[in-house]
Amino acid sequence: MHQIVQCVPNFSEGLDQATVDKITAPFASQEGIKLLDIQTDADHNRMVVTVLGPAPAVKKAVLEAMARAVELIDMTRHKGQHPRMGAVDVVPFIPIKEMDMADAVALAKAVAAEAADALGLPIFLYEQAASAPHRVNLAAVRKGQFEGMPEKLKDPQWRPDFGPARIHPTAGVTAVGARAPLVAFNVNLDTGRIEIADTIARRVRHIGGGLRYCKAMGVALEDRGQVQVSMNMTDFSRTSLYQAVELIRIEARRYGVSVAGSEVVGLVPMQALVDCAAYYMGLEQFSMTQVLETHLL
Amino acid sequence: MHQIVQCVPNFSEGLDQATVDKITAPFASQEGIKLLDIQTDADHNRMVVTVLGPAPAVKKAVLEAMARAVELIDMTRHKGQHPRMGAVDVVPFIPIKEMDMADAVALAKAVAAEAADALGLPIFLYEQAASAPHRVNLAAVRKGQFEGMPEKLKDPQWRPDFGPARIHPTAGVTAVGARAPLVAFNVNLDTGRIEIADTIARRVRHIGGGLRYCKAMGVALEDRGQVQVSMNMTDFSRTSLYQAVELIRIEARRYGVSVAGSEVVGLVPMQALVDCAAYYMGLEQFSMTQVLETHLL
Repeated sequence: MHQIVQCVPNFSEGLDQATVDKITAPFASQEGIKLLDIQTDADHNRMVVTVLGPAPAVKKAVLEAMARAVELIDMTRHKGQHPRMGAVDVVPFIPIKEMDMADAVALAKAVAAEAADALGLPIFLYEQAASAPHRVNLAAVRKGQFEGMPEKLKDPQWRPDFGPARIHPTAGVTAVGARAPLVAFNVNLDTGRIEIADTIARRVRHIGGGLRYCKAMGVALEDRGQVQVSMNMTDFSRTSLYQAVELIRIEARRYGVSVAGSEVVGLVPMQALVDCAAYYMGLEQFSMTQVLETHLL
Repeated sequence: MHQIVQCVPNFSEGLDQATVDKITAPFASQEGIKLLDIQTDADHNRMVVTVLGPAPAVKKAVLEAMARAVELIDMTRHKGQHPRMGAVDVVPFIPIKEMDMADAVALAKAVAAEAADALGLPIFLYEQAASAPHRVNLAAVRKGQFEGMPEKLKDPQWRPDFGPARIHPTAGVTAVGARAPLVAFNVNLDTGRIEIADTIARRVRHIGGGLRYCKAMGVALEDRGQVQVSMNMTDFSRTSLYQAVELIRIEARRYGVSVAGSEVVGLVPMQALVDCAAYYMGLEQFSMTQVLETHLL
């Protein structure tokens, strides 16, 4: 059985389609890799690529795409609303099958070492691959952005894990890491009052005292006259989707508001949904090997 | 993409391991096939084999296993508690991936035609492959069992679909068909009173006025002091597992009894569980392509 990894590299180009095509070509052409999504955002001037495949094939294609991005993107001319610090801004690896987090960390470190060496790029390890606690959070690593990096890298606290202790003149700095699969999960409320979604979001999210692996904010759904608690579930194996739904339901109750529905945005691992079915139906002793399709993987 | 089919042939041998091994060997040795389960039952003197794989490979292996069973099993000496009419008693094909019911019916007919021709075996098509409404139900086809078949086959209503209109002297008669995946699903109640499980089973099952694709009976779980509504969900895409759970819950309420839990026995298609998660969480516009693992199939 192959080790299957997901990789969601973010590149600082979301406007020029020719450049987008050149950078993503290694994913499209590499044998065995599924190129699941290329999401470009003009306002962010950024693209988010989602690929899935055997670890060696993903590694090879990612390194090639990183080289192309370093060659093609000039950060000294980059403008965009999303925080960014490099041409290859961030490269997270997510263990999917026949591999655990330690394997994903090892893969992240190998890619970081090779890319730093081949491209002369300073690279920080982050999230599960981080070399120190203050480097775990990507926002902390990226703070200062491209323009602030020359100064930041002089601080011994921010010496890169790989590559030179100075920015690449046009490609800046890159973060490579490993993390659990993230599920974008939203719960809709049958009210148009945004302050209720905001308040509930603050109650259910980790930072506000809520669920450990849940980030949340309130969003208005103007056309539906509803509001939404929009969440990133950062480790569904520890904080389940049903916990978020039920916690939102009981919080909504104090406003006389009900849960109108929910949605998963993008991909979700099978286990995350099976956990929910198992909870609501009280399934006992269920094993993922009972899911017929696992025998086809 | 390959057409993936599941096949669950039942053979009339559950005692002699050497014979079991010889009959199942074609499944174990055929490239690409997953031999998921061999369940032998001494009281029934019967085995149920579960295999999964590309349609051409499954077809080839099933035909070989059928030939071995016809050669090795002598129905004139067969005794067992389970109703049976042939050495190869019944061969259902279940469409799993990249194929629909029409494809499974076509496969069943092709296998029936080849087996009848090669083995001189009379074969009835049943369930979705049936050639007439009175042949849909396997119990109706098998009525009379091995001993009654010589007489039954003289009736024009029961002329076999393939092969001679007389039994094979030692292998009897075979039924080949196509059906939806079946999910064995049980709901446990926090009472020891079997009459409650029996009554609820009668209320939720199709034959008693309940759910269209649900067969059910009450079972006592002696060691737990609980009872169970034991079900076969014969088409989860039309009668969902959550419908059975919730219908049992509301029926149990009138006895002051609660649902204690549930269990899936054996395999369950991913879709059946995703449907339940989607119902309980009110998931809107969810597509199976959002399940990450579907991109690995």
